[in-house]
Amino acid sequence: MIVRMKDRREENALAVASAMASAGFDVSRLDLPFGLFLAGMGREDDAGGGIEALPGVDWVRRDAKGPVLAARERHPEGSRVLLGDLPVGGEDLALIAGPCSVEGRDQIRTAARFVASYGATALRGGAYKPRTSPYSFQGLGKEGLALLRDAGRATGLPVVTEIMEPADAQAMAPFVDCFQVGARSMQNFPLLRTVGQAGKPVVLKRGPSASLSEFLLAAEYVLLQGNPNVILCERGIKTFETATRNTLDLNAVPVLKAATHLPVLVDPSHGTGRQDAVIPMARAAVAAGADGLLVEVHPDPDHALSDGDQSLTLTQFRRLVEEIRPVAEAVGRRLSVPGASRFGAGSGPRIRRGSGWGV
Amino acid sequence: MIVRMKDRREENALAVASAMASAGFDVSRLDLPFGLFLAGMGREDDAGGGIEALPGVDWVRRDAKGPVLAARERHPEGSRVLLGDLPVGGEDLALIAGPCSVEGRDQIRTAARFVASYGATALRGGAYKPRTSPYSFQGLGKEGLALLRDAGRATGLPVVTEIMEPADAQAMAPFVDCFQVGARSMQNFPLLRTVGQAGKPVVLKRGPSASLSEFLLAAEYVLLQGNPNVILCERGIKTFETATRNTLDLNAVPVLKAATHLPVLVDPSHGTGRQDAVIPMARAAVAAGADGLLVEVHPDPDHALSDGDQSLTLTQFRRLVEEIRPVAEAVGRRLSVPGASRFGAGSGPRIRRGSGWGV
Amino acid sequence: MIVRMKDRREENALAVASAMASAGFDVSRLDLPFGLFLAGMGREDDAGGGIEALPGVDWVRRDAKGPVLAARERHPEGSRVLLGDLPVGGEDLALIAGPCSVEGRDQIRTAARFVASYGATALRGGAYKPRTSPYSFQGLGKEGLALLRDAGRATGLPVVTEIMEPADAQAMAPFVDCFQVGARSMQNFPLLRTVGQAGKPVVLKRGPSASLSEFLLAAEYVLLQGNPNVILCERGIKTFETATRNTLDLNAVPVLKAATHLPVLVDPSHGTGRQDAVIPMARAAVAAGADGLLVEVHPDPDHALSDGDQSLTLTQFRRLVEEIRPVAEAVGRRLSVPGASRFGAGSGPRIRRGSGWGV
Amino acid sequence: MIVRMKDRREENALAVASAMASAGFDVSRLDLPFGLFLAGMGREDDAGGGIEALPGVDWVRRDAKGPVLAARERHPEGSRVLLGDLPVGGEDLALIAGPCSVEGRDQIRTAARFVASYGATALRGGAYKPRTSPYSFQGLGKEGLALLRDAGRATGLPVVTEIMEPADAQAMAPFVDCFQVGARSMQNFPLLRTVGQAGKPVVLKRGPSASLSEFLLAAEYVLLQGNPNVILCERGIKTFETATRNTLDLNAVPVLKAATHLPVLVDPSHGTGRQDAVIPMARAAVAAGADGLLVEVHPDPDHALSDGDQSLTLTQFRRLVEEIRPVAEAVGRRLSVPGASRFGAGSGPRIRRGSGWGV
Repeated sequence: MIVRMKDRREENALAVASAMASAGFDVSRLDLPFGLFLAGMGREDDAGGGIEALPGVDWVRRDAKGPVLAARERHPEGSRVLLGDLPVGGEDLALIAGPCSVEGRDQIRTAARFVASYGATALRGGAYKPRTSPYSFQGLGKEGLALLRDAGRATGLPVVTEIMEPADAQAMAPFVDCFQVGARSMQNFPLLRTVGQAGKPVVLKRGPSASLSEFLLAAEYVLLQGNPNVILCERGIKTFETATRNTLDLNAVPVLKAATHLPVLVDPSHGTGRQDAVIPMARAAVAAGADGLLVEVHPDPDHALSDGDQSLTLTQFRRLVEEIRPVAEAVGRRLSVPGASRFGAGSGPRIRRGSGWGV
Repeated sequence: MIVRMKDRREENALAVASAMASAGFDVSRLDLPFGLFLAGMGREDDAGGGIEALPGVDWVRRDAKGPVLAARERHPEGSRVLLGDLPVGGEDLALIAGPCSVEGRDQIRTAARFVASYGATALRGGAYKPRTSPYSFQGLGKEGLALLRDAGRATGLPVVTEIMEPADAQAMAPFVDCFQVGARSMQNFPLLRTVGQAGKPVVLKRGPSASLSEFLLAAEYVLLQGNPNVILCERGIKTFETATRNTLDLNAVPVLKAATHLPVLVDPSHGTGRQDAVIPMARAAVAAGADGLLVEVHPDPDHALSDGDQSLTLTQFRRLVEEIRPVAEAVGRRLSVPGASRFGAGSGPRIRRGSGWGV
Repeated sequence: MIVRMKDRREENALAVASAMASAGFDVSRLDLPFGLFLAGMGREDDAGGGIEALPGVDWVRRDAKGPVLAARERHPEGSRVLLGDLPVGGEDLALIAGPCSVEGRDQIRTAARFVASYGATALRGGAYKPRTSPYSFQGLGKEGLALLRDAGRATGLPVVTEIMEPADAQAMAPFVDCFQVGARSMQNFPLLRTVGQAGKPVVLKRGPSASLSEFLLAAEYVLLQGNPNVILCERGIKTFETATRNTLDLNAVPVLKAATHLPVLVDPSHGTGRQDAVIPMARAAVAAGADGLLVEVHPDPDHALSDGDQSLTLTQFRRLVEEIRPVAEAVGRRLSVPGASRFGAGSGPRIRRGSGWGV
Repeated sequence: MIVRMKDRREENALAVASAMASAGFDVSRLDLPFGLFLAGMGREDDAGGGIEALPGVDWVRRDAKGPVLAARERHPEGSRVLLGDLPVGGEDLALIAGPCSVEGRDQIRTAARFVASYGATALRGGAYKPRTSPYSFQGLGKEGLALLRDAGRATGLPVVTEIMEPADAQAMAPFVDCFQVGARSMQNFPLLRTVGQAGKPVVLKRGPSASLSEFLLAAEYVLLQGNPNVILCERGIKTFETATRNTLDLNAVPVLKAATHLPVLVDPSHGTGRQDAVIPMARAAVAAGADGLLVEVHPDPDHALSDGDQSLTLTQFRRLVEEIRPVAEAVGRRLSVPGASRFGAGSGPRIRRGSGWGV
């Protein structure tokens, strides 16, 4: 049961929460940007029958089949999720770039500086890596986290990294600006609850066999913990096609934008698995209306410990930025270039807070 | 066995063809823009051993697993297929628009005039309709063809329509500028041979469960009849996702452009099945590098006899054109607007040869 | 519009047909084992309003979304389709076996004699082969048909072979006891109409991306031509799994048996693409309730011109029969062994009418 | 790096482990029924070059792409995993039955007694339920575990229940005979490691979009923790077909049995999602060679809190047992019926250790 309050008056919310608890629900108070909600879990029946009539209650939803909090109608103008100082979901495109895995200090520093200088708005890099085979590189773990954090600080970029199990959340928190929930974990419900409680933005990747409806319900798990800062990310689905690693489902962009207020990113790296298809599909994603991109960039893809086939070189990343910029403008979006006026719009390196090649 | 000749000298080709025939092959002479080829079919063994040594032979390919004539390397600069007077595959985007089915004189005339005035380069409309259910409208048949032809003439637009069986080719030919082979017919090999022999350009749509490799081999069937004028069209594949009718696989665009010299269109109408997703995906297709679009447009989608859910209204089509124009420019392409200078670029109606609202 | 008559009285049927024709429908009279029907095509609207009231009308169905004639409720006890003298759909399992392609007299004769002697109830073999690549063996055509016919006659087995285009039907008819419509042709609607009119039983294979609903509607196209002798065949669908050529969807067996009265076969050869999986999946198909099997058997799979990887050797076919026999009995079915009492049930070779190793 | 020792001599193993550790690997000693292995993780390069030459080393595998420990060749005769006192993977079929969710004392007791009396070899029931929607019933948690344990004790059946996160393992252990890793968790690698260390058998369900190769690599994660008691379970994959909840991929049975020594179960409940298809597909699974079944049974499916559509009633479960028994015999397997001789084979209720209707 979800109750929306007409306003944020505390006494009303308390009275409703008590009534729900008396009816046998576990109650959470969700203070979201688009309203104050009380969520009652643990029952599916029609208990709590009188709640509609309590003072301050806007509406009550029972037996929801689809998302309630994530639904577009909750927040028609669209949510903006702060990643560093960039509001993802607004006019500026988010550009989260970096290597698949953090492999060492030089690798992550080089990648970070380069992507920062060409317009990335956040740095990605995996420290805990979910790998199909136990014999593949599993990430540097805590050491990787520290290196990522350092590289982020050196460039002024917020860092995004994957969390694989709930027990890691506390230890990871100081190193991370945004948790990523990977495609294989999209329906790891304990993990969704954990990141819902962790008080940081979350990039939630679509599972390889998840329908868009299942994807939104996964986001709903996070929102129901009171965390509205969920950024969805389409990254390709499993199909019969073998020419590409996954089939990037860009239909997801307009369909999700119509169905939810949450920002939607696209990951053309996993979505294609082919270096030569990443830039065209990055352009396509922006044209389709995505709020940003998640892109794998590696100083030396041929020797990457993971996902080398789909990682862009630094030079290719520069080209990606150059190629998406006019497309972004064509659809009324822009690439965030703080300080760009000092260098001339749309060209060359730029300096971010705390950044600099000389650091 | 495929033999490429070094040049088009007739005596050499004749000698090679004789040698192939003697070795037991059925031989075809393929005079293609990118070379003179001799195709020998009907054997899979290693007969015809001395052919490599004959005068004028460039190379010989036996036991081909993938496409030979459709391969990019045959024609690295890319093929241009004339549809009316527009070379599809060049700088200009092809914009093939019209209703799913021809339903009557007024409907097809209205649609034709409108799409012509906003920049369509060809008119589509089905007269023979492949329908999942025998109880659905099956098209107007010959009557529909005549109406389509008339609407095309009245607007100066070449017409594209689907052929469903080889026996129809001769009767359809006078009414048709370009045959469409539908998704369900992609592996109708007798039909592919027929359109290969019919001497008209062919729009070949990808089957809903066809891999890109199978798609190119279907095109190869057409090319092997000596018809180089094949235009590929991605229109969505079948996946588990039910929020959309098909999953539009835009990955196909960069992958096909790398693998073949043939032009590649995208059909965002069938690829999404949702009116509200057609325009964003049309923008995405152009940004991905497609050579054009195939779009369903209907004066009154709510009362369309087929595919109403995915058909744009006339007004929406105008918006589609307005929205893809800047994207096209962002990726170095343009929408063909003959006479546009008279009206100011990118805005308003235009007059094509033989066209006119008063006709 | 479909009208079911209460009985087969001619004067009533004529009156109804006239009324339907007057209302603008093209009318067909369908004299099916499970009733007399009048099908009116060519309109989707609510014309013909008074027909319900005419004498002899049982019911009228308009705007059918799913199958009407193929629906289980039309014929709850289930249809039996005669293939030779075996009623497919009854207690006896159909066992249609033979090579993918007819490759020569010895090959098809050897295969035919062997499969006949171990209990096959029909002989399969392709003369016109739909092949993904134009460079693959395309079948022996007419020569192959004649060889197949001869091998069938020599062993007393009815023959089943694929038809690829409507124009071939007349020439093929004298050589064929049962037309097969291949998976790639499941939605070749002109072909479905042709085999509907040809007056022979039809094995209709499920398309690789066809839902069961689409499969039944394809069968409906055949039934609507007045041909009730349709045998469905599940042969695997396209999925992401690459360890097998297709994913054999045995769920289709109980689902189809509940939805339709038509017999359902399973093809474990295409359904797996792996010789080592054919026999286990043949057992599974029988256990699931299939009415028979379609199996590829080749005297020398290693040198087969098509589908060698999935063809059983003669010895393996014998083992298949031995292994499915007890499973058949476990589910209340039996392998048809005419004259078996002469040899002892369930063991060794047998003689069929007109057959004999010495022929 | 995986090292297989020729025998189990401790001094050799220690020497090899030291050498691997010196070369930078994290080393685990895996004392498996089919050999003593040393696994060295954390590096992908060619370090540890001299290890092949050390005393007692049978072979060394580096850069494994597929499963090593799970591969059939490690244990050609096949593994048997003890579930209670039944060796799963042998001649006896495992029959794990019970409700989707534990809903209350009466429900689980009733179900347990009934399935025990008709031949179930283990009791299933979910206490922690992964649900697509946060608004669906999430399971009774600890209370459910205790009820399940009691019902198991009362009937003498070992209990199988799903674990959703690593942190639960310790608290769950006293209540559980066998952990189930659900389909959504198949690539929850921390969870795989946890159940690998927990010292109990594991039922590992195939993910809805997992290839068989990925499935085996998931099992490898468990084996690499020294736990050989992994039972695989096919439960259907996601495809375009909507007539069934999933597409049960029975091809997986023969393919897995050829690829691995681990036992393979089939779950026809999730694999179909339809009560009316469960029994036919259970028969098919047994005929295909499955080592057992995982079936949902509920005393009152119409009021089940989860998966009612696919749960068998008690009566239907009895029919399932009756129908699979002859199929099992037809393929050389049997349903385990301890004490059956007292009651006559294959019929009626039976008493298991510690069980009894009067308890």
